[in-house]
Amino acid sequence: MRLLADHELSDAARAVFDDIRATRKSDFVNNFWRALAHDPVQLRQVWEEAKTVMAPGALDPMIKELLYIAASVTNGCQYCIASHGAAARAKGMSEAHYMELMAVVGLANKTNRLAVGLQVPVDDAFKPLE
Amino acid sequence: MRLLADHELSDAARAVFDDIRATRKSDFVNNFWRALAHDPVQLRQVWEEAKTVMAPGALDPMIKELLYIAASVTNGCQYCIASHGAAARAKGMSEAHYMELMAVVGLANKTNRLAVGLQVPVDDAFKPLE
Amino acid sequence: MRLLADHELSDAARAVFDDIRATRKSDFVNNFWRALAHDPVQLRQVWEEAKTVMAPGALDPMIKELLYIAASVTNGCQYCIASHGAAARAKGMSEAHYMELMAVVGLANKTNRLAVGLQVPVDDAFKPLE
Amino acid sequence: MRLLADHELSDAARAVFDDIRATRKSDFVNNFWRALAHDPVQLRQVWEEAKTVMAPGALDPMIKELLYIAASVTNGCQYCIASHGAAARAKGMSEAHYMELMAVVGLANKTNRLAVGLQVPVDDAFKPLE
Amino acid sequence: MRLLADHELSDAARAVFDDIRATRKSDFVNNFWRALAHDPVQLRQVWEEAKTVMAPGALDPMIKELLYIAASVTNGCQYCIASHGAAARAKGMSEAHYMELMAVVGLANKTNRLAVGLQVPVDDAFKPLE
Amino acid sequence: MRLLADHELSDAARAVFDDIRATRKSDFVNNFWRALAHDPVQLRQVWEEAKTVMAPGALDPMIKELLYIAASVTNGCQYCIASHGAAARAKGMSEAHYMELMAVVGLANKTNRLAVGLQVPVDDAFKPLE
Repeated sequence: MRLLADHELSDAARAVFDDIRATRKSDFVNNFWRALAHDPVQLRQVWEEAKTVMAPGALDPMIKELLYIAASVTNGCQYCIASHGAAARAKGMSEAHYMELMAVVGLANKTNRLAVGLQVPVDDAFKPLE
Repeated sequence: MRLLADHELSDAARAVFDDIRATRKSDFVNNFWRALAHDPVQLRQVWEEAKTVMAPGALDPMIKELLYIAASVTNGCQYCIASHGAAARAKGMSEAHYMELMAVVGLANKTNRLAVGLQVPVDDAFKPLE
Repeated sequence: MRLLADHELSDAARAVFDDIRATRKSDFVNNFWRALAHDPVQLRQVWEEAKTVMAPGALDPMIKELLYIAASVTNGCQYCIASHGAAARAKGMSEAHYMELMAVVGLANKTNRLAVGLQVPVDDAFKPLE
Repeated sequence: MRLLADHELSDAARAVFDDIRATRKSDFVNNFWRALAHDPVQLRQVWEEAKTVMAPGALDPMIKELLYIAASVTNGCQYCIASHGAAARAKGMSEAHYMELMAVVGLANKTNRLAVGLQVPVDDAFKPLE
Repeated sequence: MRLLADHELSDAARAVFDDIRATRKSDFVNNFWRALAHDPVQLRQVWEEAKTVMAPGALDPMIKELLYIAASVTNGCQYCIASHGAAARAKGMSEAHYMELMAVVGLANKTNRLAVGLQVPVDDAFKPLE
Repeated sequence: MRLLADHELSDAARAVFDDIRATRKSDFVNNFWRALAHDPVQLRQVWEEAKTVMAPGALDPMIKELLYIAASVTNGCQYCIASHGAAARAKGMSEAHYMELMAVVGLANKTNRLAVGLQVPVDDAFKPLE
C-alpha cells in the first residue's frame, strides 16, 4: 500500500492524524499510520486501541514498550522493533535495559523450544485450581 | 524424554538440582529440569543462564518474568506460560498486570502483521545513525 | 542461491519454465522459480502442487490467493506477500478486499495470543463428536 | 485465568455478554469471553472489534472465517481453530472448503520457507510504484 | 476432521494406504494419514512428496528426520515431534543425538532473536556474489 | 545497536573477540558479535554456548549447521541464514545438501500446519512409556 501524504487524507483519516499529533505533541506521523490511512475505520480502531493499551496503568509506559518489543522481536517484525524502539527510548529505555530485554527474549525463545521438544508436561503445581 | 526422578540423577545433574533448590529456597524442582537432566552439561548451561538473566539488574525480576511471558505467549509455549506465570505471581504479578500484559501482546501481534502486510518501510527518523 | 537466467537452465528446469509460461500465458517467470531451478525435481514438484492447489475448486482462485497471503503475513514472508499480492490483484482483489484481509489477519493474530496466554480450554461444544 | 460463570460477572462484563447473546441469537457464550471477562475494558474492545471485522463487507463472512483460520493454523492456536471452525461451518463451510483451505495454507507455509531460505529478492515487477 | 478407519476409505485413499504399508513394511498407518484421507488427492500428493523428500539422497534419512524435527520444534507442532521422533529413532537416532539437536535448536532460536532485535546488517562477506 | 569497531571494545569484549579469532583461525569477526559487544557478559555467554553447542559431538559439525539453518529458515531470520550458510559451506555443505535441506524444511512446515489444522491426535504408539 502506498503511503499517504497529508494532502491525500480523507476527512476521517485527517481527524485521526490530528489526534495522533495532539496526543504525541509532535507534527511527525510515522509511516505505519500513513499506510493504514487507506482504511479510515481501521486506522481509528488501531489508533484508539494503541492509545489506550500503551497508556499508564498497572504497568509503566516504558515497560509496556519493552513488552511490545519482546513480542515483535519474537515475530521478527523489523518495522515494529524500529518504531517502538524509538518510543521506548523516548520513555526512558537505556542501553542496559535493551540488552537485558534481549537476554530475556533470547532465553525465552531457547527454553520455549526445549520445553516443546522435550515434550515436558505441565506440573500439577502450575495448573489452575478448579 | 522421560522425566527423571531424584534417585535417577547422575552426580552432575544432582549438583544442579541442589543449586536449584538452594537458590529457590524450595524442595520443588519442576518438570522442565527433570527432562533436561538427561544431558547434565546442557542442564547446567541453561540453569546458569536462567539464573543470571532473570536476576535483578537494570530491570526488576517481575518485569523480566513478564517479558519472558510476552515472548512465550507469542510462541505459543503452554508449559512456559504456566511455569513462568507461577514465577511471576510469586514475584508480585497481579491480575491487573497480567491483563495489561495480554493487551500489549495482543496489540503487538496485531500491528506486527499490519506493518508486514502493508509493507511499511522504516521511517528515516527510526534508522540508526551511522 | 543465485537466480538462474533462461540460458542457464537444465533441460528438466526448462520444461517446467515452459509450462509456467504456457499456463500463465506470459513470458515473465519470477525470481522464486529462478532460485528453485537449481533443483529441477523440487522445481517441478512445487510448481505442479501450486498449479493444482491454487486452481478453481470449491473456493474461488482470488479467495485462495487471499488465504495464501493470510498465512504469509502471519509468517512475515515479504517475498510471498509481494508476489501473491500481485497475483491476487490480477485475479480481482481490490484495495477494500486487501484492507479487510488485513483487519481479519490482525484480529486473528491478536486473539490467537489472548487464547493462548489466558490458557482457554476448548469448549465441549467445539469438540469433534466421537 | 479462571473462567467466569454468569453470576460472577461485573456489570460491565455482563453488558458485553448480553450483546454477544443478542448478536448471535444464542444463549451460549464460549470460554474465550469467560476468560477475557476478568478485564471488562479489554472484553468490550475485543468483542466490538471482532463484531465489526467479521461482519459482511467487501468479503463474505464465511470467507473471513477461513482467513481467520488460515492465520490461526499458521500460528498453531488450537482453541482458535476449534472455535472459528465451528463459526465457519455455521456460515456454510463444507468439508471440501476446509480441505482446500488446508492445501493452500500448507503450500503457503512451504513456499514461504523456500523463498526465505533461498533468499529470493523481490522482482521489480512486484515492487510498488513510487 | 474425524479419523477414517480402513473400512471407510475411498478407493483412491485405500490405494495410498496400500503404498504406505508396502513402503514401510508395516500394517500400522498413523493418524495423520487417517485425517488427510478425507481428501484423497491431497493425501496422495503429501504422501508422494514425503516419500521422495525423506528418502536417502545427499543427506542420510536419519539426518533428514532430525532436520524435520528442528523445524517442527521451532513451530511447536506436538504431533510432528512425536511422529517424526519415532521415525528418527527407528532410523538410528540416539538420546545423545536428540539432546544435541535440542541444544542446536535452542541456540538457533535464541540467536535468531538476538540478530533481529539488535538489527544486525548482513556482512558483505556473507552476501551472494553477483 | 551500532556495530562496535575493534578500537571501541571494552577489555572484556576484546578478550572474547580474541578467542573468536583464535578459535576460527581468522581475523574476521562478523557483525553479530559487534552488535552483542555492547554487553560483554552476554557476548561471552553466547559465544561460549555457540562454541560448545556447534562443536563435534554425536553429530557432525556440518550437520549441526544444517539443523541451525532449518530452525532459522522456519523463523525467517535472514542474518542467521546468511551467516550460518557461510559456516555450513566452510564445513562441506554442497548445493545438493542445501536443496535437500530446503525440501525437508518445506515439507515440515507444510505438514506441521496440516497436523494442527486437522487437529490430529497423537497416536498411542508415539506416546512415551510411563
